[in-house]
Amino acid sequence: MIIVMKSGAVKKDREEVLKRVRELGYQPHVIHGATRDVIGAVGDERGKTVLQSIESMHGVESVVPILQPYKLASKEVKKETSIIPITDTLSIGGKEIVVMAGPCSVESEEQIISSALAVKEAGAHVLRGGAFKPRTSPYSFQGLEEEGLKLLAKARDLTGLPIVTEVVNPETADLVAEYSDILQIGARNAQNFALLKKVGQLSRPVLLKRGMSMTIQEFLMSAEYILSEGNQKVILCERGIRTFETATRNTLDLSAIPVLKEKTHLPVIVDPSHGTGHYQYVAPMAYAAVASGADGLIIEVHPDPERASSDGPQSLKPKKFARMMAQLKLFAEAADRRL
Amino acid sequence: MIIVMKSGAVKKDREEVLKRVRELGYQPHVIHGATRDVIGAVGDERGKTVLQSIESMHGVESVVPILQPYKLASKEVKKETSIIPITDTLSIGGKEIVVMAGPCSVESEEQIISSALAVKEAGAHVLRGGAFKPRTSPYSFQGLEEEGLKLLAKARDLTGLPIVTEVVNPETADLVAEYSDILQIGARNAQNFALLKKVGQLSRPVLLKRGMSMTIQEFLMSAEYILSEGNQKVILCERGIRTFETATRNTLDLSAIPVLKEKTHLPVIVDPSHGTGHYQYVAPMAYAAVASGADGLIIEVHPDPERASSDGPQSLKPKKFARMMAQLKLFAEAADRRL
Amino acid sequence: MIIVMKSGAVKKDREEVLKRVRELGYQPHVIHGATRDVIGAVGDERGKTVLQSIESMHGVESVVPILQPYKLASKEVKKETSIIPITDTLSIGGKEIVVMAGPCSVESEEQIISSALAVKEAGAHVLRGGAFKPRTSPYSFQGLEEEGLKLLAKARDLTGLPIVTEVVNPETADLVAEYSDILQIGARNAQNFALLKKVGQLSRPVLLKRGMSMTIQEFLMSAEYILSEGNQKVILCERGIRTFETATRNTLDLSAIPVLKEKTHLPVIVDPSHGTGHYQYVAPMAYAAVASGADGLIIEVHPDPERASSDGPQSLKPKKFARMMAQLKLFAEAADRRL
Amino acid sequence: MIIVMKSGAVKKDREEVLKRVRELGYQPHVIHGATRDVIGAVGDERGKTVLQSIESMHGVESVVPILQPYKLASKEVKKETSIIPITDTLSIGGKEIVVMAGPCSVESEEQIISSALAVKEAGAHVLRGGAFKPRTSPYSFQGLEEEGLKLLAKARDLTGLPIVTEVVNPETADLVAEYSDILQIGARNAQNFALLKKVGQLSRPVLLKRGMSMTIQEFLMSAEYILSEGNQKVILCERGIRTFETATRNTLDLSAIPVLKEKTHLPVIVDPSHGTGHYQYVAPMAYAAVASGADGLIIEVHPDPERASSDGPQSLKPKKFARMMAQLKLFAEAADRRL
Repeated sequence: MIIVMKSGAVKKDREEVLKRVRELGYQPHVIHGATRDVIGAVGDERGKTVLQSIESMHGVESVVPILQPYKLASKEVKKETSIIPITDTLSIGGKEIVVMAGPCSVESEEQIISSALAVKEAGAHVLRGGAFKPRTSPYSFQGLEEEGLKLLAKARDLTGLPIVTEVVNPETADLVAEYSDILQIGARNAQNFALLKKVGQLSRPVLLKRGMSMTIQEFLMSAEYILSEGNQKVILCERGIRTFETATRNTLDLSAIPVLKEKTHLPVIVDPSHGTGHYQYVAPMAYAAVASGADGLIIEVHPDPERASSDGPQSLKPKKFARMMAQLKLFAEAADRRL
Repeated sequence: MIIVMKSGAVKKDREEVLKRVRELGYQPHVIHGATRDVIGAVGDERGKTVLQSIESMHGVESVVPILQPYKLASKEVKKETSIIPITDTLSIGGKEIVVMAGPCSVESEEQIISSALAVKEAGAHVLRGGAFKPRTSPYSFQGLEEEGLKLLAKARDLTGLPIVTEVVNPETADLVAEYSDILQIGARNAQNFALLKKVGQLSRPVLLKRGMSMTIQEFLMSAEYILSEGNQKVILCERGIRTFETATRNTLDLSAIPVLKEKTHLPVIVDPSHGTGHYQYVAPMAYAAVASGADGLIIEVHPDPERASSDGPQSLKPKKFARMMAQLKLFAEAADRRL
Repeated sequence: MIIVMKSGAVKKDREEVLKRVRELGYQPHVIHGATRDVIGAVGDERGKTVLQSIESMHGVESVVPILQPYKLASKEVKKETSIIPITDTLSIGGKEIVVMAGPCSVESEEQIISSALAVKEAGAHVLRGGAFKPRTSPYSFQGLEEEGLKLLAKARDLTGLPIVTEVVNPETADLVAEYSDILQIGARNAQNFALLKKVGQLSRPVLLKRGMSMTIQEFLMSAEYILSEGNQKVILCERGIRTFETATRNTLDLSAIPVLKEKTHLPVIVDPSHGTGHYQYVAPMAYAAVASGADGLIIEVHPDPERASSDGPQSLKPKKFARMMAQLKLFAEAADRRL
Repeated sequence: MIIVMKSGAVKKDREEVLKRVRELGYQPHVIHGATRDVIGAVGDERGKTVLQSIESMHGVESVVPILQPYKLASKEVKKETSIIPITDTLSIGGKEIVVMAGPCSVESEEQIISSALAVKEAGAHVLRGGAFKPRTSPYSFQGLEEEGLKLLAKARDLTGLPIVTEVVNPETADLVAEYSDILQIGARNAQNFALLKKVGQLSRPVLLKRGMSMTIQEFLMSAEYILSEGNQKVILCERGIRTFETATRNTLDLSAIPVLKEKTHLPVIVDPSHGTGHYQYVAPMAYAAVASGADGLIIEVHPDPERASSDGPQSLKPKKFARMMAQLKLFAEAADRRL
């Protein structure tokens, strides 16, 4: 870290800071400037946010961290993108663009089976569908819970598509892991550390969505929680951040893709359905996601969006989804990827 | 809700929408405009987000909700501010400005006892201190857990101050409720609905912090989760929202106070420590919070901020806290309140 | 507009509102709800923000606008994308992806000539370069002004590339228009209405950048200022919006592209250099921009970024730019466009 | 500045950076770390953003500025708050809280005179009123222009209140300065550098509003533009920033007050009318502004808000304004100020 002293700081202030830096196990270096001194504290900064407390000391203006606070998620540990195996024949992070598709919520056997058949037909690799639903309102449909998990499993048996579904509570995580192939952590739980630790102790791959107002650094810190518990199979998902713009439900931050590709070895997928909130913007943003370097997509498809229990406005009908998949193939090839 | 048709919508589109609105149990009213039609759907909108799905229909431009989606939290249910009892002699929401103070984390017996004595001496009403700590980094200090709860209880026995401490996991909520007088839900868990439901089933008052990127409406929906499970003792806490400004850790949204006072009967307190992130801005924002109509404050005080395990830079030393309390009294009186 | 009455509003309140709506020249329609009334005010809303003032009336909860406030920029006026002619052989908005490239600032004859030759060689269509520079600091390089314009003209003579350069003041707009082929309005002047009116009275095409915190609707209102003064040759440019994320200089809002394509006939280009602020993210975001439907790009290229007077960190070296152009061609084809 | 090298940087990279740092006239200091080196570049950073370009060099991870880029606006130049004289008997920045009040736009002689009389009666010190109006829509009322200035002057003659009014274009700045006592720069022009330079050359005090998405540092850089042209009479005005929250028109950032008070000697006032956008939130935020340390307020008051040409919903009626002034007095006293 770099400790910037105030221009009016006196020698005693500086001495106190140097003493404290050494107490904390760092080697300090002083740079004398024309108007103020700057002190570099060299050493491993990770896990030592305590250094930040020096900001409270007399004569200190600010403390600027230099190193990234994550470790297992960083490229310094592993240079190439991690390839996360999902089934014997499917993995994420390799040459293939992986598409997960399906309805927001599992609503009925007929609905999830017809969705599964339609997305498979169009070329999707994974079936999505929510059984436990985190809803903003306690009065909104909260999901079919275990019954929904069973219906997802039925759809998997019929189509061979692996399943991704959300886990919302440490208490039911084992249950969800029993039925599903990928555990999804939703945006609202992206800093629910109790839940992150729990899925970090399971063996299933985890699809971690970025929180609505999470910086990329915090996103990687949440991944670090899972990794540090032992589960190395983490897939990151950009799904839009909250900004002042209201034309879209969120602002899909596609520049996060090249930033993440630079900083981490974990694969990254994009959710253009939640990212935009309107079905008509989903296809262009799916193309853009692949062009920006994403390893996959997760897309809401519903056979009858007007009757969906949740997220109807952002769901594609199967026919539109199939059309999108056809054009997506061209963008995957331009990106030297496969679909 | 108001359904706005596209300017190019044809009669058939409109008929389909009217049919669907009636199916959902609403009485539609059409307003014919010069360039487009608008359809009003009159009826209770709460719990019926399904109406939103009409946005997927042909010829529909947008669906605009009219009613607030919360009910138990709203002023329509209860006109006066709810007065939440904490102990036999202390309650929040009445004429008295309630001040909660103490360290971010419980670190040791000596630290929490000396903090408790200091904040009591300065006039605080409640002792704060974290035993379970939600930290951005898995490598940061995670709290003393049950040991921390026991130390808090000891400090309460000694000083008589009731305790507020954070609960981070449904699994340990009963344990925390055993020791503490107020259960705090932190900003990162403000939409952890499993946790909200759990504390809604307990009888302890709940201090609900606003999420970092939560609208005021979503904040009230999270309160509604707790209220709808049966626990009516909810205290709201504004603690800053995330914006582009980096001079402060968050942007303390004090205008949320008069907005909340207009929309809900629940009492509202302010956390200027997390709101600003720097000790030198805490006192002015505490004064401003009371001037804007807040019912109380929660403030970080640490006997030795340079050695704090967390949040040192935003913690007041006991002497500064005492000086702040003295001037706060004048602002409380100007606001026709008591301290 | 839709006027939502308070649940406690009485008949007299409603009568006063109806009277006022009629005074303003609208035809009101009342929808009686279970808990409150809603009044629709049918009529042309544009230019009549006065209706908003009804929000001050007794018993009124809120006023919700329904129609878009822009007219000449809207798709209702013109269904197909406008094709803006730049030179006899170049236009923006057609099948061809138009690429504008060059240094942030014109620094010297050698620098602008070598930049122009390099970007032309790589396939760019327009040369960019700032002569009048709006800089955050008064102590930063402010541009070569008229001397810079002359150097740009020299580069045009040599390469045949038309020129885009920024205009920062109504007083110097005519001078800039004399030398340049496209007038750029920068993000910081996107709501400098005096400047917008001035360029609206000139005949040169205008490249209008989105302001840092401008909604898409406000962006189109700024375009409307130019259009309503008579200049129909407006090109929109998404260049990133301000959010909490600090890994990139701005957050490039690519979802604005499909939104704008739905709402306006004006062509839209993207600036991935300012959008990201780091050269290594420019190429992926350029590909993504074309995939999302953009009509062109504007990119910073500098022969020696380490010595650039401004924006060095986000400038591509000519070799990297050439490599980007080669791969961009593949994405243009996938999007059924030409480069 | 601090230059952070990549962990994989080699000796040659470092040598190149050191060479370049010396070329730019700085004295470099290398701190060797376990995983990477850090280079401190000591010297006056102001006006030398060129250093930032080092970020383009091979082996460099990032460049972190240390010094504030403003100088004349900073506390290092002047420790006490500047007291800006407005008239012989009125100044801003001293013990007295200065209140500016009046309608958003000057609409007619009757309207401005009755407003002036009312705000004077209630204790305001300055009359506000817009003659040149920057409006988001070209179809909205654009102000009475010179006619409006004449009416303002008439109101001043009648009441003795000095006038603050907006200047929107360098071309008409002299005209506005002839009539008015304080020149207002609006939020949308806060980085219109041509306009800032122009008012910097005039002798009138300038009320500079913070831009909608301006950091506090950028705000001070805009003030620096005015100061560096020679006009030292700058009054800063916080008026709300743009965030995701829609319950208020903007989010009034009151924590900016103590931050500004720490960093600059310029006086700071607050605009709770634009900050909140709703009349019912104006009084609580005015109280909070004074409690947080503001030197004054600017408030919209209109005799008939329902008929206002602009900003009706956020305007106070004279009676409410008078009531607010009475209670404001108590908060001013609590803050050891005078009203």
